[in-house]
Amino acid sequence: MSGTQSQATASSLQICRIMRPDDANIVGNVHGGTILKMIEEAGCIIGTRHCNTQPGLSQDRCAAQLARVERTDFLYPMFIGEVAHVSAEITYASKHSVEVQVHVMSENILTGATKMTNRAALWYVPFSLENVNNVTEVPPIKYASPGQEEEGKKRYEAQKMERLETKERNGELLMPVSAPDRTTKEPYTVGFSQSSLIHLVGPSDCTLHGFVHGGVTMKLMDEVAGIVAARHCKTNIVTASVDAINFHRKIMQGCVVTVSGRATFASNKSMEIEVFVDADPLIEAEKGKYRAVTAFFTYISLDMQGKPLPIPPMKLEGDGEQRRFEDGKMRYLQNKAKRLADKERQQ
Amino acid sequence: MSGTQSQATASSLQICRIMRPDDANIVGNVHGGTILKMIEEAGCIIGTRHCNTQPGLSQDRCAAQLARVERTDFLYPMFIGEVAHVSAEITYASKHSVEVQVHVMSENILTGATKMTNRAALWYVPFSLENVNNVTEVPPIKYASPGQEEEGKKRYEAQKMERLETKERNGELLMPVSAPDRTTKEPYTVGFSQSSLIHLVGPSDCTLHGFVHGGVTMKLMDEVAGIVAARHCKTNIVTASVDAINFHRKIMQGCVVTVSGRATFASNKSMEIEVFVDADPLIEAEKGKYRAVTAFFTYISLDMQGKPLPIPPMKLEGDGEQRRFEDGKMRYLQNKAKRLADKERQQ
Amino acid sequence: MSGTQSQATASSLQICRIMRPDDANIVGNVHGGTILKMIEEAGCIIGTRHCNTQPGLSQDRCAAQLARVERTDFLYPMFIGEVAHVSAEITYASKHSVEVQVHVMSENILTGATKMTNRAALWYVPFSLENVNNVTEVPPIKYASPGQEEEGKKRYEAQKMERLETKERNGELLMPVSAPDRTTKEPYTVGFSQSSLIHLVGPSDCTLHGFVHGGVTMKLMDEVAGIVAARHCKTNIVTASVDAINFHRKIMQGCVVTVSGRATFASNKSMEIEVFVDADPLIEAEKGKYRAVTAFFTYISLDMQGKPLPIPPMKLEGDGEQRRFEDGKMRYLQNKAKRLADKERQQ
Repeated sequence: MSGTQSQATASSLQICRIMRPDDANIVGNVHGGTILKMIEEAGCIIGTRHCNTQPGLSQDRCAAQLARVERTDFLYPMFIGEVAHVSAEITYASKHSVEVQVHVMSENILTGATKMTNRAALWYVPFSLENVNNVTEVPPIKYASPGQEEEGKKRYEAQKMERLETKERNGELLMPVSAPDRTTKEPYTVGFSQSSLIHLVGPSDCTLHGFVHGGVTMKLMDEVAGIVAARHCKTNIVTASVDAINFHRKIMQGCVVTVSGRATFASNKSMEIEVFVDADPLIEAEKGKYRAVTAFFTYISLDMQGKPLPIPPMKLEGDGEQRRFEDGKMRYLQNKAKRLADKERQQ
Repeated sequence: MSGTQSQATASSLQICRIMRPDDANIVGNVHGGTILKMIEEAGCIIGTRHCNTQPGLSQDRCAAQLARVERTDFLYPMFIGEVAHVSAEITYASKHSVEVQVHVMSENILTGATKMTNRAALWYVPFSLENVNNVTEVPPIKYASPGQEEEGKKRYEAQKMERLETKERNGELLMPVSAPDRTTKEPYTVGFSQSSLIHLVGPSDCTLHGFVHGGVTMKLMDEVAGIVAARHCKTNIVTASVDAINFHRKIMQGCVVTVSGRATFASNKSMEIEVFVDADPLIEAEKGKYRAVTAFFTYISLDMQGKPLPIPPMKLEGDGEQRRFEDGKMRYLQNKAKRLADKERQQ
Repeated sequence: MSGTQSQATASSLQICRIMRPDDANIVGNVHGGTILKMIEEAGCIIGTRHCNTQPGLSQDRCAAQLARVERTDFLYPMFIGEVAHVSAEITYASKHSVEVQVHVMSENILTGATKMTNRAALWYVPFSLENVNNVTEVPPIKYASPGQEEEGKKRYEAQKMERLETKERNGELLMPVSAPDRTTKEPYTVGFSQSSLIHLVGPSDCTLHGFVHGGVTMKLMDEVAGIVAARHCKTNIVTASVDAINFHRKIMQGCVVTVSGRATFASNKSMEIEVFVDADPLIEAEKGKYRAVTAFFTYISLDMQGKPLPIPPMKLEGDGEQRRFEDGKMRYLQNKAKRLADKERQQ
């Protein structure tokens, strides 16, 4: 393989796969979590590849670990039998992290129809394989123009700030989530739809180095958010968007992972679900359970023909739920304003 | 996390998961084996967790290995798209084993309907991770009352006795099972429906320590019993109950596992299938093939609307089949009598 | 997507994926079957896509079904943690079939090392989705030169002839294979290593239209061949090559598939294993069991450092084994001669 080819493959990557029955719900809509998992696999490959290319330097080998996923919208649903195409590209490199931008397209191989289903930006941090507590240095990339580097740097600074903020918030929260008791909980309350999944981490969930793939975690998160949404709406529900997700702590093989979701906000058209991931080292129990990730998922409700249905209003109980609802409303209005601004800018 | 909460999670556990296409047959009925596998995963987590909690003692780390599952009835079918809730609790601890009691509920997240689908009791034995031939000591548990401990001890003694008995029976039997030859076998004979599955154990089938999860074995057993029942009935067949299963010998990664089933008894409403699991270490062949597990599965036959259909009578050939039929009839009548007695006691 | 891009994606495709523990043996060598399955997934996507692109014609939608895989060599081993890159391209179209050529590369994303691990050519036939017994017409492709079309036509005629020949051979053979009995079989005999796998076809094994993916079948075939080789050699064995495989009959969801392998030939450096796939429709038993596929796999034996080990000589018993050994020797010598000729031509 010649030098130019090698560079071409080093900075871009394509993954594709046929969507199967297990990737989708009963109506045939592919789970948002399946797509997030593919996105992260592409990001992990290209990120790890880049962080290990430093000709001339005798550097530690390293593995790129997912640190953050920016907010992403699911623009169109994908269906069983379609082919998902994921294209990833490295778009910014700081001293200790890389940004990977990813596009996802669905292709109906029978009709030839293709649709852009979503875009995402992921941040990876390289860890030394010899000492997993060491963050290694990221080789620089070439930018097409100084403006591109400038833009990337702004995105880098912005996400760095946000990551610090959520770190605080994660520490604050301690929420015991159990299975909902429908005999004592009233329909449309937060308690009625609150849900958890518990999963024992196995070899296929992990990288070679024994850490859970970020994509595996996001798939579980989407699954629990989907259960909350289905319990609330009792219809065909699909992922509409995922807010930025920060991965503060790694999860190791052999952990039991508890993923919990609760409704925080509902407009007429969509509902927001907060998801918590706690990891519990099964055998080394003295290390204790810890909060690994949190995120907000937004779901919409569809009828059997795929047309949007209104979301039943939430019944709020207590000050905490009221406060989280107001916070969710703020996020909802901010996103709406941002979408409108983006639209206007494009016109 | 406070001390009381920590104790709460240490002695109880909830797992839930949406049922997928791969979990069910073509009609959408979730396989009994899928449920058994979830039950065992919950038991393995809670058992391993408990056996590693011994404050103040410098003990070997250990993994809880399934030793026995008590007889369990499948009270209601579960369907694709429903959520299976598995709750596990440690209910008795002897010096070298723990009893885990498990409840399974199905939840239709669209209608909100929930049903108790089955209950099970499992026995686990902890093995040292440093030396897998060492059984470690089980930390004591607190009982709500002396009566509870007493009851647990009775169950412990009863299962201990039964495990010794089946050990005998397992040694006796050596049955070569191959694929049925329909050109020479008559319909409704034992030979016509006799079936096997052969599976190479992979990493995902195993615990961190390279032993096959008991749940994986039970899923294969249910799968082969289902094939026997389908070949006999040619209808939609579902698992009605599983007799007590004893796991005499562990199965390691890299084994080829042969799971064979044959019809032993049929009443008008149900049929009983005996299942054998033999393990063959692929490379260390000198160790030889060994019988790892045996069990009896009971199946019922349903029409497409889920209504029970009569089971075609079996055509028995030879003394062995006749004897096993009589034994099966005895088990059938005993279970029927026990169910009636339980019912009367509850009234 | 512009017109030119659309054409570009229509005739070429790239798939890539990180290799996981489940894709490999205990030593970390990725199974040949895993690679064959990826190759077939790429071929199925590009073949189905092409057969449904006929601008202006109101044609039935169709699915491309694997009809044949040409002989393929595994040039280098692939390992867990490496990324497998599969590139597929349509290289010939007859009236009712397409040829897809596939390249596979392994990439070590830590060191950046890449290797071509194998090349394959697959033939697909499109079936109408409205009537699965109807073969539809294949849209023509554009060739870079008349010579290319000519070459393709020659390959097409050659494989057509070979497919007819093996159809004969498949009809002849009817071999019941059961698990080997080591108490009666002597080491290094055919009977000692003869093996089977039996698998119930599930939703994830199938296309949307309920037929088993050719790649799933090939993965099972490689798995059983690997068991035979491991039982014979008792070492780390890896797939070296697969002879041309013809898929004479489709396998449907709900079938029980028996895959059997037996040693046919061994040189000092490699051994050949013949594999048979029989499908048995579970419920519609009147249709009866049928031979779906046969093939020859060649394995080599490696030590723990990956260096080749000699293959223990086979102990032949009976005329049949002797005859098959001679046939295998012929194939071995022909392939050796062909490889030498190819090498000389390239120099």
